[in-house]
Amino acid sequence: MKNSIDFYFDFSSPYGYFASCRIDQIAGRHGRSVVWRPYLMGAVFKVTGRGPLPEQPLVGDYARRDFLRSARLHSIPFQMPARLPISAVGPSRAYYWLQGQDAEKAKALARALYSAYFVGGRDISEPAQIAVVAESFGVEPAVLANALQDPAVKERLRQETDAAIARGVFGSPFVIVDDEPFWGNDRLDQVDRWLARGGW
Amino acid sequence: MKNSIDFYFDFSSPYGYFASCRIDQIAGRHGRSVVWRPYLMGAVFKVTGRGPLPEQPLVGDYARRDFLRSARLHSIPFQMPARLPISAVGPSRAYYWLQGQDAEKAKALARALYSAYFVGGRDISEPAQIAVVAESFGVEPAVLANALQDPAVKERLRQETDAAIARGVFGSPFVIVDDEPFWGNDRLDQVDRWLARGGW
Repeated sequence: MKNSIDFYFDFSSPYGYFASCRIDQIAGRHGRSVVWRPYLMGAVFKVTGRGPLPEQPLVGDYARRDFLRSARLHSIPFQMPARLPISAVGPSRAYYWLQGQDAEKAKALARALYSAYFVGGRDISEPAQIAVVAESFGVEPAVLANALQDPAVKERLRQETDAAIARGVFGSPFVIVDDEPFWGNDRLDQVDRWLARGGW
Repeated sequence: MKNSIDFYFDFSSPYGYFASCRIDQIAGRHGRSVVWRPYLMGAVFKVTGRGPLPEQPLVGDYARRDFLRSARLHSIPFQMPARLPISAVGPSRAYYWLQGQDAEKAKALARALYSAYFVGGRDISEPAQIAVVAESFGVEPAVLANALQDPAVKERLRQETDAAIARGVFGSPFVIVDDEPFWGNDRLDQVDRWLARGGW
């Protein structure tokens, strides 16, 4: 049984979204499964001193153009959200709560949340919007509302974020293959190559 | 006659060095020439609020690992310099001074300066080290020393740096193809594709 690979992302990251549409297929070609690990870039920025790309002079203009170009390149549906970035706390908690019950269903929820934000234009930082998406997975709104405030779920997200940073993770997407780190959607081709060859 | 493409880089940037080893070959496949435009990332950092990768927590550790990995991937000779970053003022001035006389020779000098730093371990921020490299191109040390302090050469580098920033350039390497910007050595495959197709 080959090791699974770790896929770190922030729910507010367009590049994380693009990678989410590609990573399982790439890993699957090499007989690998993928563990999705949403975490909070806000916590990373406190360590690195960096900030969200869209807010940086020059870099932000390039990023907004590149989001659209990257989506076209990979034929991924994408609409620039009205608000970017947003807080990823709510969708991340929803993911980890559901993961405790059904890992595959949690991954499907994560995909649906990303689509709701980057295709449907829903602000998934809002619990009401998360509830709409979760309901299509059979989750009652009242159950979801409790889950988002569950101390164990909150703690899980904190631990995941701390563990990611302790492991050297600082971007979205960020993929780790057998301890080899790859930062950025534009490095998924290298992930593919690394998986095929076991390094270079 | 097709438009030439613009290649922006900082002499202190490993990714700029890697791109310098690849960009002319990529452009040449599509009948394009390349104008090399060294500029100063220090001026960019004042605008973007960013700083050198090696100095950023988490990011620096990743970058140092990725420099070596990127060099291996593209079979480019590379030794991590003892000092990184260094000031790119001297080598940039040497380049623009020689460019005023012979553009191809200036590009060859730039390649030799990059090699001296990233393969030979010479600190090319030092005028004496630049002189050693320039001498192999038939430039007398006294002539070079004057060139590095020539007000017109100083002004040219300032203008190139200002013009780059005014054009939205903020990284090294940064390539512009017919007004389409590409940031990063890991985007040269996209430059290749863009040149082949005229966009996507």
